[in-house]
Amino acid sequence: MTNVQKGVAEFIGTFWLVFGGCGSAVLAAAFPDVGIGLLGVSLAFGLTVVTMAYAIGHISGCHLNPAVTVGLWAGGRFDARDIPLYVIAQLLGAVVAAFLLFYIASGNPAYDLATNGLAANGFGEGSPGGYDIWSGLIVEIVLTAGFLWVIMGATDGRAPAGFAPIAIGLALTLIHLISIPVTNTSVNPARSTGPALVVGGLALQQLWLFWLAPLVGGAVGGWLYRQVGADSFPKPNIEGE
Amino acid sequence: MTNVQKGVAEFIGTFWLVFGGCGSAVLAAAFPDVGIGLLGVSLAFGLTVVTMAYAIGHISGCHLNPAVTVGLWAGGRFDARDIPLYVIAQLLGAVVAAFLLFYIASGNPAYDLATNGLAANGFGEGSPGGYDIWSGLIVEIVLTAGFLWVIMGATDGRAPAGFAPIAIGLALTLIHLISIPVTNTSVNPARSTGPALVVGGLALQQLWLFWLAPLVGGAVGGWLYRQVGADSFPKPNIEGE
Amino acid sequence: MTNVQKGVAEFIGTFWLVFGGCGSAVLAAAFPDVGIGLLGVSLAFGLTVVTMAYAIGHISGCHLNPAVTVGLWAGGRFDARDIPLYVIAQLLGAVVAAFLLFYIASGNPAYDLATNGLAANGFGEGSPGGYDIWSGLIVEIVLTAGFLWVIMGATDGRAPAGFAPIAIGLALTLIHLISIPVTNTSVNPARSTGPALVVGGLALQQLWLFWLAPLVGGAVGGWLYRQVGADSFPKPNIEGE
Amino acid sequence: MTNVQKGVAEFIGTFWLVFGGCGSAVLAAAFPDVGIGLLGVSLAFGLTVVTMAYAIGHISGCHLNPAVTVGLWAGGRFDARDIPLYVIAQLLGAVVAAFLLFYIASGNPAYDLATNGLAANGFGEGSPGGYDIWSGLIVEIVLTAGFLWVIMGATDGRAPAGFAPIAIGLALTLIHLISIPVTNTSVNPARSTGPALVVGGLALQQLWLFWLAPLVGGAVGGWLYRQVGADSFPKPNIEGE
Repeated sequence: MTNVQKGVAEFIGTFWLVFGGCGSAVLAAAFPDVGIGLLGVSLAFGLTVVTMAYAIGHISGCHLNPAVTVGLWAGGRFDARDIPLYVIAQLLGAVVAAFLLFYIASGNPAYDLATNGLAANGFGEGSPGGYDIWSGLIVEIVLTAGFLWVIMGATDGRAPAGFAPIAIGLALTLIHLISIPVTNTSVNPARSTGPALVVGGLALQQLWLFWLAPLVGGAVGGWLYRQVGADSFPKPNIEGE
Repeated sequence: MTNVQKGVAEFIGTFWLVFGGCGSAVLAAAFPDVGIGLLGVSLAFGLTVVTMAYAIGHISGCHLNPAVTVGLWAGGRFDARDIPLYVIAQLLGAVVAAFLLFYIASGNPAYDLATNGLAANGFGEGSPGGYDIWSGLIVEIVLTAGFLWVIMGATDGRAPAGFAPIAIGLALTLIHLISIPVTNTSVNPARSTGPALVVGGLALQQLWLFWLAPLVGGAVGGWLYRQVGADSFPKPNIEGE
Repeated sequence: MTNVQKGVAEFIGTFWLVFGGCGSAVLAAAFPDVGIGLLGVSLAFGLTVVTMAYAIGHISGCHLNPAVTVGLWAGGRFDARDIPLYVIAQLLGAVVAAFLLFYIASGNPAYDLATNGLAANGFGEGSPGGYDIWSGLIVEIVLTAGFLWVIMGATDGRAPAGFAPIAIGLALTLIHLISIPVTNTSVNPARSTGPALVVGGLALQQLWLFWLAPLVGGAVGGWLYRQVGADSFPKPNIEGE
Repeated sequence: MTNVQKGVAEFIGTFWLVFGGCGSAVLAAAFPDVGIGLLGVSLAFGLTVVTMAYAIGHISGCHLNPAVTVGLWAGGRFDARDIPLYVIAQLLGAVVAAFLLFYIASGNPAYDLATNGLAANGFGEGSPGGYDIWSGLIVEIVLTAGFLWVIMGATDGRAPAGFAPIAIGLALTLIHLISIPVTNTSVNPARSTGPALVVGGLALQQLWLFWLAPLVGGAVGGWLYRQVGADSFPKPNIEGE
């Protein structure tokens, strides 16, 4: 595939992740009486990855997340020269999704950005459950590391072929089931950046943590699997999976 | 397969989609204390497609939706001459399902069509959450385009074989997790037409949007994947998947 | 496999279905504040089939349900001489599960059989939502027919291999998402018989409908797929799937 | 794979199970208004296994549970000499996860160990729903036996290849959907030991049952499948699955 095709696929895929995941949170989570709650939001985030991984896994590898791109590089599965292309496409997709979601939410007279927000990530004052910065930092590092471990393992040549999108997408669901109350769950700097740019203020001030922790965690997870889990790499690159 | 077999399969499949999806909404979503809520309805709609796609994918391709049929045509995977057969069978299945569902719901003395409705789609006054026409129009176009992108990608010859029903069905679940509060979620003109014919009134007046937006979005999604995602078509037609 | 092996597998599998499905309903559905609700019960019933179908599909075909056994016979996939063995094993598994579940539930001082029941099926006075006999009869016939249509299609030789347990199990989840409020969802005479024998009274008086409707619906669904859906039977029997 | 690789994989996998499963219960289950409830916790436990089984199934077989290790030995699929390595790695992973989870939970000023606990298992006074010791004992034995039956069957050489992680993980979800109110669901001595060591008191006093019952149940389930279900063992060991 050409770089243009990969870039467009990552743009569309990350758009889908942020529009779908944050969209379910903003539009449907707290709907009176029958809202989907944090369980529904967790499912939505995971399903954006399950669905896109089957749709574009053969085009770009379906990273949709700078921490995944960096983690796969740390795991020896991705070429460092392609990181900028992927990260820029992911960021653009996330930002466009966040602004479009804001436009759609604003079509509801009861919606107010300051009150309802846009599913931005945060810690301390910005944490949904009031968790402090250390809880937020650690949970994001640990969960992103686990996420990359699962990604590396499920796309290993010795794992059953074709199931990786299910394992990876449902890992993202699991991660949200654990940590939405702590940080609103990032494990993805692009997903954090989109809403933060729309919301501004506290979300923007705290955005650094949601770049730092996922990137560190992702690199640790990818590196760890490479050291411990692997004994051969029939597939040196996740693409073509 | 013969045209009769394809038509019967699309009729039964679309019946299943409307009876199951709208049925879960009308009968179970708001059941006191233990109702399935919008999360359960989202799951039900998606599972109608997961289950039917494994059951009739080899017969008709399991479109169950005029926007899918048109989108696959725009993506170069479906012959324009078969569109009328498919759309008519889908409409008949949806209408029969809606009337049968109404009959079953009416077996509950507490059910009242004017109060409880039949899971019809709407915007503005007809939107479950009070979203205006522009939010409804855009969300239906964007989500149907994403739906077709996933369908095109997951049935691409380079994607893992056999998983497309999971990707496509769960994409429909995801779409509902996002947008039920906005339009009650259509992305499917047949699904909108069935309940609208039973309910009449506002649902019927607003039905045009749920033909326009899904058809436009579906065509855009199918066309976009054809331009960007594909480099070969080992499978020129979704049938036989 | 020998008949003993098949019988034991059907016994254990149907035990799992009733113990798991009805168990989730009796023990966890209405747990204060965090109960799993009808959505959780629907998922539980479906997962009993997903898990058992992978565990014993290669032993007995994993019917777990007289309506499935009869429907597969009507569809030309099962030998009539084996029906009694399967149905008896299914009934025994269901009855043992119901009595064991009752014992476990009784370990809670707050549990009372007359008040809390044992997830028995019913219509009219016995319907969770107060639906009349016609709603109950029709919904059970239609959903069992759809269930068998999915089973026949997903185990067709032209469908992707290995996915049938997912399609069939999630079809049972879907069916519950629609119809628990109407009849508490049977589509399975064995599942209805177990709790009815423990509960007695109304559940036992209404048990006939949950034999009649699923058997009729199952036979119709199996027969219909055989007429319309099939053009060849590379697998004349679901076993060995 | 070397023993070090297997041990590290079991350590990381069991960490993931306890951190994810208990983490979802402690952090997210009872979040006000939109908490994930017992359904979300059930899903989280299951998804830890689905995701890890695809990630490390080819390294260690992904047991994550002494009852699984012992049950597979009883079923003739695992060498008794490797049991200590596996069980020790599982225990270490569970304990580290429990302490880390406690640290993260403590980052919330409203969290109190004595009040909120750490998702420990219990019966009688320690049972979430007040179920007595016999209910707890029996439900843990029966469900662990069923769990091992599904594991043995889904990894049988005659079952469809590659689907075992889905069957096994979702079996764990099913088990939680049934039994959280009874014992908070163990079926896994390592999962019980981690939180009990942090919480102490009643949880520690009752810990014996959550070693006894799962080990007995697991051995029964593995042994039963070996007697009844199997007619050949093309795969004498779950590893390399």
